[in-house]
Amino acid sequence: MRPPLKVNMDYREAGVDISAADEAKDRIKTLARGTFNAGVLSEIGSFGGMFRPDFSRLEEPVLVSSTDSVGTKTKVAILAGVHDTVGHDIVNHCVNDILVQGAVPLFFLDYLAVGKIDVDKVEAIVRGLAAACTEVGCPLIGGETAQMPDVYAPEDYDLAGFIVGAVDRAKALTGAAVREGDILLGLPSSGLHTNGYTLARKVLFAVMGYGLDTQVPELGTTVGAALLAPHRSYLSALEPLLERKKVHALAHITGGGFAGNIPRVLPAGLGARVRKSAWAVPPLFRIIQKGGAVSEEEMYRTFNMGVGMVVIVDPADLHDVEHSLERRGETSYVIGSVVKGSGVSLE
Amino acid sequence: MRPPLKVNMDYREAGVDISAADEAKDRIKTLARGTFNAGVLSEIGSFGGMFRPDFSRLEEPVLVSSTDSVGTKTKVAILAGVHDTVGHDIVNHCVNDILVQGAVPLFFLDYLAVGKIDVDKVEAIVRGLAAACTEVGCPLIGGETAQMPDVYAPEDYDLAGFIVGAVDRAKALTGAAVREGDILLGLPSSGLHTNGYTLARKVLFAVMGYGLDTQVPELGTTVGAALLAPHRSYLSALEPLLERKKVHALAHITGGGFAGNIPRVLPAGLGARVRKSAWAVPPLFRIIQKGGAVSEEEMYRTFNMGVGMVVIVDPADLHDVEHSLERRGETSYVIGSVVKGSGVSLE
Repeated sequence: MRPPLKVNMDYREAGVDISAADEAKDRIKTLARGTFNAGVLSEIGSFGGMFRPDFSRLEEPVLVSSTDSVGTKTKVAILAGVHDTVGHDIVNHCVNDILVQGAVPLFFLDYLAVGKIDVDKVEAIVRGLAAACTEVGCPLIGGETAQMPDVYAPEDYDLAGFIVGAVDRAKALTGAAVREGDILLGLPSSGLHTNGYTLARKVLFAVMGYGLDTQVPELGTTVGAALLAPHRSYLSALEPLLERKKVHALAHITGGGFAGNIPRVLPAGLGARVRKSAWAVPPLFRIIQKGGAVSEEEMYRTFNMGVGMVVIVDPADLHDVEHSLERRGETSYVIGSVVKGSGVSLE
Repeated sequence: MRPPLKVNMDYREAGVDISAADEAKDRIKTLARGTFNAGVLSEIGSFGGMFRPDFSRLEEPVLVSSTDSVGTKTKVAILAGVHDTVGHDIVNHCVNDILVQGAVPLFFLDYLAVGKIDVDKVEAIVRGLAAACTEVGCPLIGGETAQMPDVYAPEDYDLAGFIVGAVDRAKALTGAAVREGDILLGLPSSGLHTNGYTLARKVLFAVMGYGLDTQVPELGTTVGAALLAPHRSYLSALEPLLERKKVHALAHITGGGFAGNIPRVLPAGLGARVRKSAWAVPPLFRIIQKGGAVSEEEMYRTFNMGVGMVVIVDPADLHDVEHSLERRGETSYVIGSVVKGSGVSLE
């Protein structure tokens, strides 16, 4: 055992800055307050966020919750110095995940872990979170900002979200309604959403030598802008259909692609057939595929390939559903159908 | 632009292992299922976790939610190769955070981010989560395991938790009931809980040259065992008192210590006086203080110093509360009182 050195160690010296954390908290508080609705009973900074749900219109309320992160999309945000888009990403990702069960959001909390607190960066991230929360009508009622200097590099961060929503039990989507012959409608994604960034970055930056500012004619924008395009929410397009019970199931196409996500909402004994020619795969995916010589199978297993949400409907309701989506300004493609068997066959 | 190399890149080559993730998911599913109660309507692996709350005994149900992480306590777990205790830490931390508002748990979700999936390590972490969830009667209904090879070193991980609980609005603790002259009762912590690990590790390992296996007579155990002691839950000790409305406020002593946490539950115009001589600070804190020449102020601002929860009660209820705690096997110290003013004076 060595004798204690004269260090007069404090927490800041050990790499944790409590004053910066306090400053960040103040800015977060102001941004979060802008998202509050009548259900919120607490202030940011309380030990727990308090929310009084209005279940008056639900016969048997079921809470639906989910957590996810933006993955290594943060790496692109850090490289670009643009931090508000990942806030949109995580909120919309979580909103879509509970929408799959038929639920609409009640409230949201974020978990932000950083190497070193940069107050402006934290503010930008939370500004994105708050804007996305406001768009979907979901108050940001709490969160945690953790400083972990030995886990994260100073400029690095991880961003996770946690959402709670509600659905009336009779309207919850459990997959039980899905039948052989049901139609798969694909709704367009807005880019890679929040999946496949480790592979995409390796291919675009390390293999192809692109930079963030590289203008790619097929993309009509820079590599950076294409990669940071926010994960979109399907709430406003789908809510009226859920209300009218016109949807048998939804699958959010995230990590694992079609094969990893569609079977999650199919009953035993049923699989899906997807026709890849039914929609045009956006250029970004083709650039990654060609640039990294990534196999077709790997591409469809890793990325959404241009379809961010799959809506499974009764063939008898197809036109009704298509028209409802169209009225909401939503594009949709008939991409396949539910068949006997299991898994997803991509044709 | 360089020509594309022949790489045949896939996600595993890019550092993300989908097969290991699937294997981990299967093990998580089994462990989580063991925590389920009648409220859980979904399986692990659904997009959202579904929970039907039983609000029949609540007049005006309020949802209380919180998120937190175990911070760099993971670093000690990794060094020791012991991964189940951090699972207990995060569940109990979250349980205590909503308890402060008077709420009891409904359900829990975890967020685990890793550099590289080690299936056995993930299983150990989730085994701890599941055991702690079972102890407090709170099902683990969902979670996310994110592989982020460029953010985390291969052996590193971050662990955050999300909890949702409920309280009847009339029984919610908001701090409004606190009066000048109220008594502060301190309940013992079981160690550092989940705060101050960056400083503690720097002092114990880097400055003092201790190892995990160093036996320290004052600790009665090794440095590793003392640092990994799980964050305890105060739910069973405090639930009967909350039910009987015998508590004016609770403060969970986490990052920021007494000064950072007690004022969070005091109304404007009131502060707290804490007598440091009222309890014996456990040896681990004194060893860190001496070894790192950490100032007294910094110690009380960073660590819980042996008191993990502060219970604020009406002086007229003091004996009743003390007896109730004693019957539950809980030790308590009168550590101070509520006074006019603001902040916390440590005397």
